[in-house]
Amino acid sequence: MNIKKFGGEFKLIEKISRTAKNKNVIVGIGDDAAVLKFGNKNLFVTSDMMCEGDHFSRAYYSPKQIGIKAMVSNLSDIAAMGGLPLYAIVSIALNDDTTVEQVEQIYNGLYKVADRFNVDIIGGDTTHGAVLIISITLIGQAKGKRIITRAGAQPGDVIQVSGPLGGSEAGRQLFKRKIKGFERVKKLHTEPSCRLDISDQIATYATAMADISDGLASDLRNICKSSGVGAIVNREAIPIADNVKRAAHLLGTLPSDLALYGGEDYQLIYTVANKFSEKVPGVTIGEIISGDKIYLENKGERKELTRFGFDHFL
Amino acid sequence: MNIKKFGGEFKLIEKISRTAKNKNVIVGIGDDAAVLKFGNKNLFVTSDMMCEGDHFSRAYYSPKQIGIKAMVSNLSDIAAMGGLPLYAIVSIALNDDTTVEQVEQIYNGLYKVADRFNVDIIGGDTTHGAVLIISITLIGQAKGKRIITRAGAQPGDVIQVSGPLGGSEAGRQLFKRKIKGFERVKKLHTEPSCRLDISDQIATYATAMADISDGLASDLRNICKSSGVGAIVNREAIPIADNVKRAAHLLGTLPSDLALYGGEDYQLIYTVANKFSEKVPGVTIGEIISGDKIYLENKGERKELTRFGFDHFL
Repeated sequence: MNIKKFGGEFKLIEKISRTAKNKNVIVGIGDDAAVLKFGNKNLFVTSDMMCEGDHFSRAYYSPKQIGIKAMVSNLSDIAAMGGLPLYAIVSIALNDDTTVEQVEQIYNGLYKVADRFNVDIIGGDTTHGAVLIISITLIGQAKGKRIITRAGAQPGDVIQVSGPLGGSEAGRQLFKRKIKGFERVKKLHTEPSCRLDISDQIATYATAMADISDGLASDLRNICKSSGVGAIVNREAIPIADNVKRAAHLLGTLPSDLALYGGEDYQLIYTVANKFSEKVPGVTIGEIISGDKIYLENKGERKELTRFGFDHFL
Repeated sequence: MNIKKFGGEFKLIEKISRTAKNKNVIVGIGDDAAVLKFGNKNLFVTSDMMCEGDHFSRAYYSPKQIGIKAMVSNLSDIAAMGGLPLYAIVSIALNDDTTVEQVEQIYNGLYKVADRFNVDIIGGDTTHGAVLIISITLIGQAKGKRIITRAGAQPGDVIQVSGPLGGSEAGRQLFKRKIKGFERVKKLHTEPSCRLDISDQIATYATAMADISDGLASDLRNICKSSGVGAIVNREAIPIADNVKRAAHLLGTLPSDLALYGGEDYQLIYTVANKFSEKVPGVTIGEIISGDKIYLENKGERKELTRFGFDHFL
């Protein structure tokens, strides 16, 4: 059966995943990063692959931006576990169109982000492929004893996000439709940041956490599935920057839809016990409830969320 | 400048590599695996990417064989450091031609090899790409205190290889030229093994080691460059299986050329002090000398080696 007809990424990953046998695997497949007991420490490891045509286009990404985004998407997964990133392993396939200058610029982008967070690129693979591909594996470590996974959200917890959403998807659509202007919005797509700056503070109180890479709807669903809970999200509470709202208007879409279904914002979504919600930076957008359904509330009207983020195999 | 005109993989990797800042990086870019001090242990990490069209073809690889080879090539890098493999992170890009059954078979191949060496697949990325791509990062640990790198070969050391060579390249050429028969030789290309079975024994005595993934000539050059030495290789001493010799005859090539320039045999090449050479399994093919030149000796005639293995960017 063709993978496009099978039923999406979730089902595919379920089919190929097995439980780890090594008892030092604390968190295996299915979270933002795996967690391993290694000697006297906990090690985090995550991997993200970006393929030209699917994840970026040289038509509107500079080579440096490709490097920036590839590194940020991996760092974001470590941030989502409350971890400290340490080492990156970069594998890159170059096609015949690639110039040496482009390769250097890609690495300038990788090093720009890596340097900011004291991450060393310690190896990888440099090879040839039909399209340009970057696959990064990031190794980090736990900061304290606590490891924040997607499981752990409790009914009654508030749901927060670390900052404004929807910008990356707005930028992507602006590029796709060749709309001029909105340079700052477009940069949210091509030069995203991750929230390692505040992930520590959040991790002190969060009961569950994920990064927003597949869209708010998808990433919240991941937390709900892993935690065995449901959620109510207040659509009007989803934070959107003013210029993204203006771009949404021009694109003829709801700003909150860009946030819910767009992805690649690399903000964090997390749940916190109500009594601690004031202590954690971010914006409250809803509440965890019992059950397994996710509801969107808008001006008093409550609807079950049935659409999720982008799925490569749907 | 186009990457094909720049001067090969070595120059390209030199251009993009930097020395690690973190003092826990014991071995960085440029060996089979990086070595990191992590808590009270040494961690090995390596990554290999395989792209359809460049590294394999579904025309003559079964999906299971693609999985086998991807895992073996990474395990081989850990074997080359004398390490114990522990965890694999598998990132895979699937294209529209891929079926669910193929994905399952690829994972059957990955798990077949991983299970044999008690390696857990603990995560990765499953995404869409223009061609089928598998990128694996393997994490291992040092077995004892010794770490065998490519540096450490001394003039007077003997050069050994762990087993017969040239089979993978013979198999590849048989497939390419659509020659019938030679099924066992062809399997050396599509279903290689790695030498984790004896890497321990070798590591006890080896002064330097690498796996033979780019061809004997290339991988010996890596050892010589890293160790600051030269070498003499006796062409007639290079071990070649009888059926590979027969295939070479049919292909109109020297069997030892298949070994020298072919690659993907995943045997080990290592140097040992003369007095220990009897204690180490394998076949002696030459000797380390001072200087920086590598000579091929054939029936008393000595020529400098100037051709090396396959380079994606030459």
